[in-house]
Amino acid sequence: MPDWGGHHNAKNNTPIRAAIIGLGRLGSRHARHLVEKIQGVDLVAACALEDDQLQWAHDELGVETTYKDYKEMIDKENIDTIFIVAPTPFHPEMTIYAMNAGLNVFCEKPLGLDFDEVAEMAKVIKEHPKQIFQSGFMRRYDESYRYAKKIVDEGGIGDIIYMRGYGIDPISGMESFTKFATEADSGGIFVDMNIHDVDLIRWFTGQEPVQAYGLTSNLAAPELEKIGESETGVAQLKMNGGVIATLIGGRHAAHGNQVELEVMGSNGWLRVGEHPDLNRVTVFNENGVTRPSLQSFGERFDNAFTDEVQDFVNNVAKGTQPNVTVDDGIKALKIAKACQESADTVQLVDINL
Amino acid sequence: MPDWGGHHNAKNNTPIRAAIIGLGRLGSRHARHLVEKIQGVDLVAACALEDDQLQWAHDELGVETTYKDYKEMIDKENIDTIFIVAPTPFHPEMTIYAMNAGLNVFCEKPLGLDFDEVAEMAKVIKEHPKQIFQSGFMRRYDESYRYAKKIVDEGGIGDIIYMRGYGIDPISGMESFTKFATEADSGGIFVDMNIHDVDLIRWFTGQEPVQAYGLTSNLAAPELEKIGESETGVAQLKMNGGVIATLIGGRHAAHGNQVELEVMGSNGWLRVGEHPDLNRVTVFNENGVTRPSLQSFGERFDNAFTDEVQDFVNNVAKGTQPNVTVDDGIKALKIAKACQESADTVQLVDINL
Amino acid sequence: MPDWGGHHNAKNNTPIRAAIIGLGRLGSRHARHLVEKIQGVDLVAACALEDDQLQWAHDELGVETTYKDYKEMIDKENIDTIFIVAPTPFHPEMTIYAMNAGLNVFCEKPLGLDFDEVAEMAKVIKEHPKQIFQSGFMRRYDESYRYAKKIVDEGGIGDIIYMRGYGIDPISGMESFTKFATEADSGGIFVDMNIHDVDLIRWFTGQEPVQAYGLTSNLAAPELEKIGESETGVAQLKMNGGVIATLIGGRHAAHGNQVELEVMGSNGWLRVGEHPDLNRVTVFNENGVTRPSLQSFGERFDNAFTDEVQDFVNNVAKGTQPNVTVDDGIKALKIAKACQESADTVQLVDINL
Amino acid sequence: MPDWGGHHNAKNNTPIRAAIIGLGRLGSRHARHLVEKIQGVDLVAACALEDDQLQWAHDELGVETTYKDYKEMIDKENIDTIFIVAPTPFHPEMTIYAMNAGLNVFCEKPLGLDFDEVAEMAKVIKEHPKQIFQSGFMRRYDESYRYAKKIVDEGGIGDIIYMRGYGIDPISGMESFTKFATEADSGGIFVDMNIHDVDLIRWFTGQEPVQAYGLTSNLAAPELEKIGESETGVAQLKMNGGVIATLIGGRHAAHGNQVELEVMGSNGWLRVGEHPDLNRVTVFNENGVTRPSLQSFGERFDNAFTDEVQDFVNNVAKGTQPNVTVDDGIKALKIAKACQESADTVQLVDINL
Repeated sequence: MPDWGGHHNAKNNTPIRAAIIGLGRLGSRHARHLVEKIQGVDLVAACALEDDQLQWAHDELGVETTYKDYKEMIDKENIDTIFIVAPTPFHPEMTIYAMNAGLNVFCEKPLGLDFDEVAEMAKVIKEHPKQIFQSGFMRRYDESYRYAKKIVDEGGIGDIIYMRGYGIDPISGMESFTKFATEADSGGIFVDMNIHDVDLIRWFTGQEPVQAYGLTSNLAAPELEKIGESETGVAQLKMNGGVIATLIGGRHAAHGNQVELEVMGSNGWLRVGEHPDLNRVTVFNENGVTRPSLQSFGERFDNAFTDEVQDFVNNVAKGTQPNVTVDDGIKALKIAKACQESADTVQLVDINL
Repeated sequence: MPDWGGHHNAKNNTPIRAAIIGLGRLGSRHARHLVEKIQGVDLVAACALEDDQLQWAHDELGVETTYKDYKEMIDKENIDTIFIVAPTPFHPEMTIYAMNAGLNVFCEKPLGLDFDEVAEMAKVIKEHPKQIFQSGFMRRYDESYRYAKKIVDEGGIGDIIYMRGYGIDPISGMESFTKFATEADSGGIFVDMNIHDVDLIRWFTGQEPVQAYGLTSNLAAPELEKIGESETGVAQLKMNGGVIATLIGGRHAAHGNQVELEVMGSNGWLRVGEHPDLNRVTVFNENGVTRPSLQSFGERFDNAFTDEVQDFVNNVAKGTQPNVTVDDGIKALKIAKACQESADTVQLVDINL
Repeated sequence: MPDWGGHHNAKNNTPIRAAIIGLGRLGSRHARHLVEKIQGVDLVAACALEDDQLQWAHDELGVETTYKDYKEMIDKENIDTIFIVAPTPFHPEMTIYAMNAGLNVFCEKPLGLDFDEVAEMAKVIKEHPKQIFQSGFMRRYDESYRYAKKIVDEGGIGDIIYMRGYGIDPISGMESFTKFATEADSGGIFVDMNIHDVDLIRWFTGQEPVQAYGLTSNLAAPELEKIGESETGVAQLKMNGGVIATLIGGRHAAHGNQVELEVMGSNGWLRVGEHPDLNRVTVFNENGVTRPSLQSFGERFDNAFTDEVQDFVNNVAKGTQPNVTVDDGIKALKIAKACQESADTVQLVDINL
Repeated sequence: MPDWGGHHNAKNNTPIRAAIIGLGRLGSRHARHLVEKIQGVDLVAACALEDDQLQWAHDELGVETTYKDYKEMIDKENIDTIFIVAPTPFHPEMTIYAMNAGLNVFCEKPLGLDFDEVAEMAKVIKEHPKQIFQSGFMRRYDESYRYAKKIVDEGGIGDIIYMRGYGIDPISGMESFTKFATEADSGGIFVDMNIHDVDLIRWFTGQEPVQAYGLTSNLAAPELEKIGESETGVAQLKMNGGVIATLIGGRHAAHGNQVELEVMGSNGWLRVGEHPDLNRVTVFNENGVTRPSLQSFGERFDNAFTDEVQDFVNNVAKGTQPNVTVDDGIKALKIAKACQESADTVQLVDINL
């Protein structure tokens, strides 16, 4: 397992004082990790819109003070660092406010949905080069992707020819997605589901896409049409070094959460997450021989989320910037949006990063 | 296992008298099947260019007469039926000559490479409606595809959303392919490797493609550039009923022969041939836990080839036309060529069947 | 696939004239193979007790003459060879009658149930050294076992330490077994289900068992108690060269037909048939990720049955004795019965072959 | 993932003050977990024989005081609780000393090797019913075993018929084992490798073994003969409710750490850890299709070790005794030693618990 070095200073340094904005599905996971697993940080305040979320943070996690207004929290609290896990459209303004307040910022992906806002966000981040800014590309911390990356980097599969990334949610998540997407802008299937795959393709190949052909459908969920969403999206990317890639986003896997990455090389292939095994149990019954599947990205990436945040905390403690920059986030967003634009306009879209 | 009914008349009817053109890798397989496995047929003559192939047919299989000129064979032999397993460019002229000679014809896929020739071939076939014509889409006879098709037809995975077909040869086949493609026109990566996948996508969905985006590369085999071939081809298809499909053809799989088909439905998925298991052995050694892979389509589809030819022989005996028509062959060819055209012209190609 | 050489003489020699006794589940499979797949043999007569079985052989397979009395068939027919697929208790008397009539004999496993009868059978066989006698250890012809054996023989897993053989029928077969075992003596769970595993353990290791500890239970099928049968049997064997082995026989697998062999070596392991995959389809649905299972040994070993009989026919044609001798059959029977004796007497049983 | 409730009191109660004896492979893992992952405990002191281990605990983990004499540590430190991870023969005396000093004790498995010492240990433990005593059967905390146990308890596979437990170390561990076993008494292959399987068989079935047949061999590692150890041990157990079980311990798996449990039920089977997958990567290369394997029980059971210790800490905080008692530990030890006795004496051994 990767060692993020958190323990080196765990007992010697004063913990970083941190606050969090957002206590939903992912926010509450980060909050719990900060309290129970991450070394070198104290979670001293939390901001959310729901009373019961704030109550939970106070009672279960022992968070001292809670807020409904994030600016008030930033203004009043004596903190070094903030975790932004609010809905995507708020990421730019919250990041800008926090950076201007002198804080280190961990902001969940994607950076935002509007390019002008994201450009402004990037500008402000770059104006504060001593503050740490890190965005949530947690898959780079997952041990399986890291193992695969190492094989690729060591030449274990030759040159990359093709990549395929699946980000497909289980049917069991449809109801909560529909509710979420009715209230907010998801950014579309590619931005919402495949932005991690885009980042991985850039990370593995070192190449940039130059052209996209996207197609979407609602065959499996016609009701999404009404709220302007697509159940499935498929995009084929041409990369500037000759690699070809396919992205598939979806919301209707019957078996579970299919986050699969294929890396086809000239001398071998890798598949990460070919089946979303829930655990180490194999069941032999009237259906045949079955491996049960996991249902949520939280189960799948729990360790990656922890390692990612520990790495950020260490970066803050040491004053080092992360490898993944705000520009990586902007590029991934542009690529995902180009796929969506191709699907929307029914033509090839050229990508200039 | 499917039962093609060959035995119903095996002992009661006079066997069909057949000849074969072509005794290469696939031709010799068909010839052996005709002698050893297929009921109701006698292989009485064979035509090939190589002396040793003809010698083999005579000595090993007991074929009485052999020829180097296919027209001479058709003219002289008292036969009902001919199997055409010569290089693809010869398929149209041979089929036309045989149909006009009153024979039933089994012709390997693809029908040809030149559309004018294939159109003429189709015209002649249709002028002889009492003679049986069948082309070699043997995957429709493979028990795994049939099992998958049955699940789909019974609604077992809901409505099809997406399909993905891989036809990727092992590295071990590169040398013989290069020799073959230097001497003859393979038709390009999509025609040579994915035409079966095209047929399967049409068979499973009942839909037709309307647009293709193809990309090719020679990252893994730059030497193919010189002979105008591509090592890898990837194409994304838009179908007229909303299904999206991806085709991948390649010649550089390190592990073996990857013929994989994914059928993603609104309520379940199927993968046929996810791994090309050689047999039922699992090896636990210093590499980890391994399933050895098969290397050739012959190993993979041996039973399908037998069942396909048995079905053709039965059709001849009963005077029934097969389900797969010459038009299916023409459509598959057009679709595969559209993918190639897209890759060659670097633009989207509309498909009108 | 192994090549048994049947085609070498297929067209040159006069076919062997053969008859079969028994047209049940396995007998009808052999009969069909003899007519449709095996080269160099004509099935000219069949004997069975049921009218409809004889009618089927005549109508479907074109068998000319049928009998209800096997002695009458042997006396009247002009045949070289006989296939004995009758219930086990009849194997010795039928083999003796046929050998004394000058026939080559293929006899299904096990040789018999009564040691005195089997000893007499072996004596008669040895008195006719020019006639071919072969017993039905078809697993030695299965491509997966052969592949595993080759790895072992080439030193691919070092020295064998341990072997584990499972022969477990599906629940779906319980009803027909209960009917069968009510009418006839199955020989007990170890003789009925594990005699093939015994043969494989001897074949792979070249060692002989010297001690057995057997245990049986009817936890899953208490109704078998009444007919003196056991649903499950487990035996641990000590081999004379230090290898240890476990045999498991059963009749209550929910998923299918589990015929699994593990070979644990000092430098690697092999498992043959770890999962009884029905075909090459993987299903992703609400249960998770599933490989459907096959239900019958006939599906599992169809090719092995064919290759075994082809090999026998070739042996007859060439006058060569098979590698597996009647003594191998006797030893396997003694070992399986020793496991049963241990379970019946609740003590260790020494084995002297 | 199971929730051991550690967070309920994490922020509200004064942490427990704990010390540890032993900082070897497993001891250092526990120590790190106590500092970095376990809520509600402070590791204030550590005892080990090696200077560099003590230095590591001080520098890396921030442990304040270190000792080479465990009695001195217990006498001087103000602690509530002790973790005993010293070599097995010391477990009884250390536990007795700690219990008499009023401490709560977590002691690694097995309890000891000498029955008289273990009996005395159990007596002392029972004399202090208000102090918590817990032994290290961490597999009961592993999410895969818990998942399997839940299926069994809910009747998902019917009644248990048979169980098979493999505890087989990789070849890569041979050198360190040989060093360890030369210096200390491992207790033999069954005690050292299969005591967890014994506990699981008792836990899953609720039955007790009544008879054992054990066999051992050194075919793969003849050098172990000199130090009185066996490379492989196989034992077949008869349980008092009719279940049959097989245990296999070994030290020579080429692929990795094979900890596998099979539970065969009357209506389904489960296998836990059928393959020791290292992570979620599948490799397609010249060997075929491979899942890399993990090498150490530490990788395999890292989460289980954490959850086990968290549960113990919670038990201490709440004053509740664990479900696994000292008597469970004694029974598991007796059963494992009976398997060894059978192998040593070459006869069946009756087990009376």
